[in-house]
Amino acid sequence: MKHDIIENEILKDKLIINESIFSIGNGYLGVRGNFEEGYVEDCPTIRGTYINALHDIVDITYAEKAFGFPDTMQKILNIIDSQGLIIELEDGEIVSPVTGNITEYKRRLDMKNGYVTRSFIYHNKKNQALKITYKRMVSFKQLELFCIQVDIEPISYFGEVIVKSTLDGDVYNYTDKSDPRVASGHAKLLNIVSTSIEDYLAVLVKTSHSELFCSCVSTLISTLDNNNYKVAKLTNSRQVEEVHKFKLIEKTSFTKYTIYTDSLRHKKPLEDSIELLTKVKAHSFDYWIKEQTKYLAKFWESTYIDVKGEKDIQEGLQFNIYQLLQSVGKDKYSNIAAKGLTGEGYEGHYFWDTEVFIFPVFVLTNPEIAKNLLMYRYNTLEHAKEIAITTGHKSGALYPWRTINGTECSGYFPAGTAQYHISGDIAYAFISYYLTTKDIQFMYDYGAEVLFETARLWMDLGHKEGNSFYLDGVTGPDEYTAIVNNNYYTNAIAKYNLYWANKIYIELIKTYGEDRTTQLLAKLDITVLEIQKFKKISDIMYLPYDKGLDINPQDDSFLNKKVWDFEGTKKEQYPLLMNFHPLTIYRHQVLKQADTILAHLMLEDYAKESTIKNCYDYYERLTTHDSSLSYCVSSMVACKLGYEKEAYKYFMETARLDLDNTHNNTKDGLHMANMGGSFMGIVYGFAGLRIKEEGISFNPILSDEWQGYQFNIKYINRVIDIDVSTKHIQISIEGEPLKLKIYDQEYFIEKELTVNLRKNGINTVRGDN
Amino acid sequence: MKHDIIENEILKDKLIINESIFSIGNGYLGVRGNFEEGYVEDCPTIRGTYINALHDIVDITYAEKAFGFPDTMQKILNIIDSQGLIIELEDGEIVSPVTGNITEYKRRLDMKNGYVTRSFIYHNKKNQALKITYKRMVSFKQLELFCIQVDIEPISYFGEVIVKSTLDGDVYNYTDKSDPRVASGHAKLLNIVSTSIEDYLAVLVKTSHSELFCSCVSTLISTLDNNNYKVAKLTNSRQVEEVHKFKLIEKTSFTKYTIYTDSLRHKKPLEDSIELLTKVKAHSFDYWIKEQTKYLAKFWESTYIDVKGEKDIQEGLQFNIYQLLQSVGKDKYSNIAAKGLTGEGYEGHYFWDTEVFIFPVFVLTNPEIAKNLLMYRYNTLEHAKEIAITTGHKSGALYPWRTINGTECSGYFPAGTAQYHISGDIAYAFISYYLTTKDIQFMYDYGAEVLFETARLWMDLGHKEGNSFYLDGVTGPDEYTAIVNNNYYTNAIAKYNLYWANKIYIELIKTYGEDRTTQLLAKLDITVLEIQKFKKISDIMYLPYDKGLDINPQDDSFLNKKVWDFEGTKKEQYPLLMNFHPLTIYRHQVLKQADTILAHLMLEDYAKESTIKNCYDYYERLTTHDSSLSYCVSSMVACKLGYEKEAYKYFMETARLDLDNTHNNTKDGLHMANMGGSFMGIVYGFAGLRIKEEGISFNPILSDEWQGYQFNIKYINRVIDIDVSTKHIQISIEGEPLKLKIYDQEYFIEKELTVNLRKNGINTVRGDN
Repeated sequence: MKHDIIENEILKDKLIINESIFSIGNGYLGVRGNFEEGYVEDCPTIRGTYINALHDIVDITYAEKAFGFPDTMQKILNIIDSQGLIIELEDGEIVSPVTGNITEYKRRLDMKNGYVTRSFIYHNKKNQALKITYKRMVSFKQLELFCIQVDIEPISYFGEVIVKSTLDGDVYNYTDKSDPRVASGHAKLLNIVSTSIEDYLAVLVKTSHSELFCSCVSTLISTLDNNNYKVAKLTNSRQVEEVHKFKLIEKTSFTKYTIYTDSLRHKKPLEDSIELLTKVKAHSFDYWIKEQTKYLAKFWESTYIDVKGEKDIQEGLQFNIYQLLQSVGKDKYSNIAAKGLTGEGYEGHYFWDTEVFIFPVFVLTNPEIAKNLLMYRYNTLEHAKEIAITTGHKSGALYPWRTINGTECSGYFPAGTAQYHISGDIAYAFISYYLTTKDIQFMYDYGAEVLFETARLWMDLGHKEGNSFYLDGVTGPDEYTAIVNNNYYTNAIAKYNLYWANKIYIELIKTYGEDRTTQLLAKLDITVLEIQKFKKISDIMYLPYDKGLDINPQDDSFLNKKVWDFEGTKKEQYPLLMNFHPLTIYRHQVLKQADTILAHLMLEDYAKESTIKNCYDYYERLTTHDSSLSYCVSSMVACKLGYEKEAYKYFMETARLDLDNTHNNTKDGLHMANMGGSFMGIVYGFAGLRIKEEGISFNPILSDEWQGYQFNIKYINRVIDIDVSTKHIQISIEGEPLKLKIYDQEYFIEKELTVNLRKNGINTVRGDN
Repeated sequence: MKHDIIENEILKDKLIINESIFSIGNGYLGVRGNFEEGYVEDCPTIRGTYINALHDIVDITYAEKAFGFPDTMQKILNIIDSQGLIIELEDGEIVSPVTGNITEYKRRLDMKNGYVTRSFIYHNKKNQALKITYKRMVSFKQLELFCIQVDIEPISYFGEVIVKSTLDGDVYNYTDKSDPRVASGHAKLLNIVSTSIEDYLAVLVKTSHSELFCSCVSTLISTLDNNNYKVAKLTNSRQVEEVHKFKLIEKTSFTKYTIYTDSLRHKKPLEDSIELLTKVKAHSFDYWIKEQTKYLAKFWESTYIDVKGEKDIQEGLQFNIYQLLQSVGKDKYSNIAAKGLTGEGYEGHYFWDTEVFIFPVFVLTNPEIAKNLLMYRYNTLEHAKEIAITTGHKSGALYPWRTINGTECSGYFPAGTAQYHISGDIAYAFISYYLTTKDIQFMYDYGAEVLFETARLWMDLGHKEGNSFYLDGVTGPDEYTAIVNNNYYTNAIAKYNLYWANKIYIELIKTYGEDRTTQLLAKLDITVLEIQKFKKISDIMYLPYDKGLDINPQDDSFLNKKVWDFEGTKKEQYPLLMNFHPLTIYRHQVLKQADTILAHLMLEDYAKESTIKNCYDYYERLTTHDSSLSYCVSSMVACKLGYEKEAYKYFMETARLDLDNTHNNTKDGLHMANMGGSFMGIVYGFAGLRIKEEGISFNPILSDEWQGYQFNIKYINRVIDIDVSTKHIQISIEGEPLKLKIYDQEYFIEKELTVNLRKNGINTVRGDN
């Protein structure tokens, strides 16, 4: 580990962005990088603490409602605020680095050891100085634990100090009426059930509608001996606090242990939190840091990636992966939200982002986490079956466009529920897990059922005319076109889903034999005939193709539309969705994000090389990349086509999207999918990794800007290390020998292999561009 | 006039429906047929009084908002309730025909004289009887006047009687969360500003947001002399009342004069209403009835229609026309709402219903009313230009899908704003007015501007590829398909709109010469070049055509979709919009209402006869007629095709749709468009009237079920009477001689003409069916 994320000065208008950047979390609990003492003066802020999947239910209000629209949705909760830890000097002077006179300010996210420090020297009104250092961590070892330590060190100030620790139960969710990507209402969701200031501070809250509880208990322990200071505990209707008063003589430390429990995971949230608090406070802050370091050492070992000599990229990549780890759910209740646990954008909902942009990272590096993501979908299968019924199907599973607990939370179906591809994306992830792990037991227990039910959706959705099977009335990944017939991406992923729903049956027969497989089919209420029909329909799935252009039209009507007037569009009119009526957008050839190009990344064998190239050339010029899911896909397909310069350009957009706030909404939380996409950009993009039924392959290229790159992945009980330099590709294997392909040539590797690097991979179609 | 609408008994579950049926109004003021005394026990009711165009503004809340969605909308107001006129007998016994013991109940809507009577003999608890007769009218002569007279006649009851007259300002709009056709929120919109019980009862209310006032003043005058009874006036926070107490000796009458004014039309609503009250109460109830009869005599003379020997149809037709007259706006602020002034369905909004289904009635019978409807659109042209800009156009006028004051009130754009055809429909109505009246001055002053601005919309919307002009991303009249490319209806009406935007220029030149026309163009900021381009684009407008089927596909993708499973759809699953998700509906070949068929009615010359026939055959089997705008269109085109039995069947659905509550929502108000459609069914349908650039023509057919039909219309300063019997067509002209076509044969008529009737009109394609 080489990099930390550093902030060297306080810029008031960047504080809200850095709240997202300096978020800490562990997949269960997330705390935004707010200041313990607040900003004292009025700076824009979203002060937030979140528990993954802990939600309330709110009504969805429609301007005009129609049949089947969901009545309610889930919404992540901004829970009890325990970040408060305020230092007050003599004459009531609050130590605030925002309003006061400070020097040597530094904030650092330490990704090796898993915590954030924030330190500065504070000069009070009498120009006396003291050094303040806050450290904060959310523990990977004890998921409920959030811990802050503050060191107060006298330099020339030796007066009285008051340290105030608070728990605030009067919390609100963030709203913004003008931005469709942020909630517009329902700010107050939690009600205080009880507060306590006995041995510890405690606040128990309950949601307004989902009947869920969240408990937060906290205690502040100092390095002073008991005689040297006074402690008072106070309570009012909105918060509890403990106030520690002492005279500053030498470096003095306070550790605030806070435990968060919820009634989703804990039988008795309040009692459980108190019990846990007793347990955790027996250990020092340093102990918890050591545990954190241990956990992360293992993580970084299995998630190694390096772009050689590119400090900025390296920083970006590590930050992205680290934030994914901090946000990804690690139990059956949770998945990974579009903004992780770093903000309230998209209201804490899980999207297809998980399966297409984040799952591919974990399946290669931390398959247990990947498996947990799949289990979440398995556990919500019944809801997906209900959505299919509501949406007019006789059978099948239609996974929700956005959700927390598995029901549909989308209130605008043309760009929500209509995105049927999400069911295919989920099936694709199950298949991908199987291909990468060969964990057939998982497929027997869970995967087959998901594949069958999603396959049934396509069967019911589609219709056969002549010798082709058509899928009408869906929206593809590109949200700048809605409700079309035969979206290429959707049809392609449906074809794959149907193929594998049959194929997995054959695999199950091979491993478990006829009897146990028949048992399973009986349990899942599916016949061999139905499964065989999946294959037949897969074979005749219609994939739009335009002979004249040798491209796959995005859908049946796409090519007939007017091309967007890009020249006449001003820079400040992007993203288009914020400046044009959906009708204007829908009636033009214009893409928010790569769509057919994405299909060609995930299912490249469904199109000829020339078609893939022509599609890339055709659609790239129509793509605004207004979605943060777009650049990485374009980069990866550019790699495949040997468009090294474009691949580099688009990759660079992904690597530091949040660190550089290029989408201007990092304040609402980090873009998790893009973060996964940047990792994918190296692995699936530049290295050209593919894992298919026929095995694993690479097709590496290197950007002219780079010295090389290196990463390792897990593949069927092996670890593979890939090291690409300006001349060579070096592959090392831990575990069984491996057959693989590089540049379409097959190799058998015992331990290591070195192959010459080709400038533009397999393809030299366009050479330099 | 032969028919009244009669109710002979009180059926509790039909009362709410009959509130709509027995509505009275004059285009400014509408009062539902509630009982003066209420129902006393809990019966479903929508107690309502409305002033056309008087609205409040409410926020539109979206589940997920996007750019360009309107933030607010207008909503008709249920205004101060002045219907209260209660009779109380001894021992506090309220006279209620619903809960009490009554005989000889009868309610009658008298369409010749323009009022409703309701009478019954009431038997009190001691079995003493008295006869009660309520009469109510809303005056056509004095639009602000609502008048009730109650006669109390002793039979065997001779005790004390209390008559209580109320004005209630604590009124709410009706809401129903489960029905998308009815408002789901915003019930309380009016706030009481002042009440008064001096010389008269008075309530002044103000809207919450639109800053509009409504004043209601009332007085009760009896036939008793002053010494014989006592009067008290009371007020509380929600209502004012006057109580008259007397001993019943002989028939005694009370007349309640009520005046409604609003701040849209009246400078000082309260003062104006008081002044008007003084004026109107100087005349007796009988005087106002006589004025009403006079007004209606003229109306029925100019709006004569009769289906001979068919009492039910005749009743239906007269009722429909009468209700249109009662609801149609007669000033510049108002149009005609989807439910007229008879209920709150669709929140008092004006739709394209006006131009396509109601305007055609008035343009033939009461051109001044038709002109007023056009003036409303002219007056809101600036709003339409703003909507075009918001929806992404550089110029042009996009008329709102639903509105009161001219701004867009649709909160679901795929079936709202996306219905661009409304701009074409409005242009069509202007053209139709011109063809029927040859009022070129009106076109110079107003019509040309509307034609130019709507034409500009198509120019900006569409795009030229090769030698065709395409219109993408719109929704046609059929709402079971949304946001498609090249909806046939839309493209056809756009072609006509563009043609006439050029043609009217030529007509203007003819009448006004170069100079005055050039002046006009300068004022309207349009060049001759632009106008000429309209014609060029009209000529190359793409009209979808499928050669194999010889039909016009409804849009580019329609024919590729799966046909709806009609066999598998149960009767109670209609209307589909109430039982299926829009996605399910959108992805099938299924129509809510005639779409391409409507285009073939309005613009028959754009398709071959065979195509029109094939389209009818193709689309009819796909049409659910879930919209009340559908049957009349199918009937009219069936007439054209000589499908006499189908024409009759569909016509019969329109004639009594509300009288028989066949759509099960008459309670929310009467279906104005269908009412227009039933008149059109005879005139444009069975009689086959067409008024085109080349002149007027008829193509009459007669249903086997009928003896004949007769009606008269106005055409360029003439009155034409058409009398169709089993053998002949007899045409009589008042005014200048006329050249016309019957069955494609040209005739010149001085006074009268008789032609033999053909069984199936021009076409004998299918003979009997």
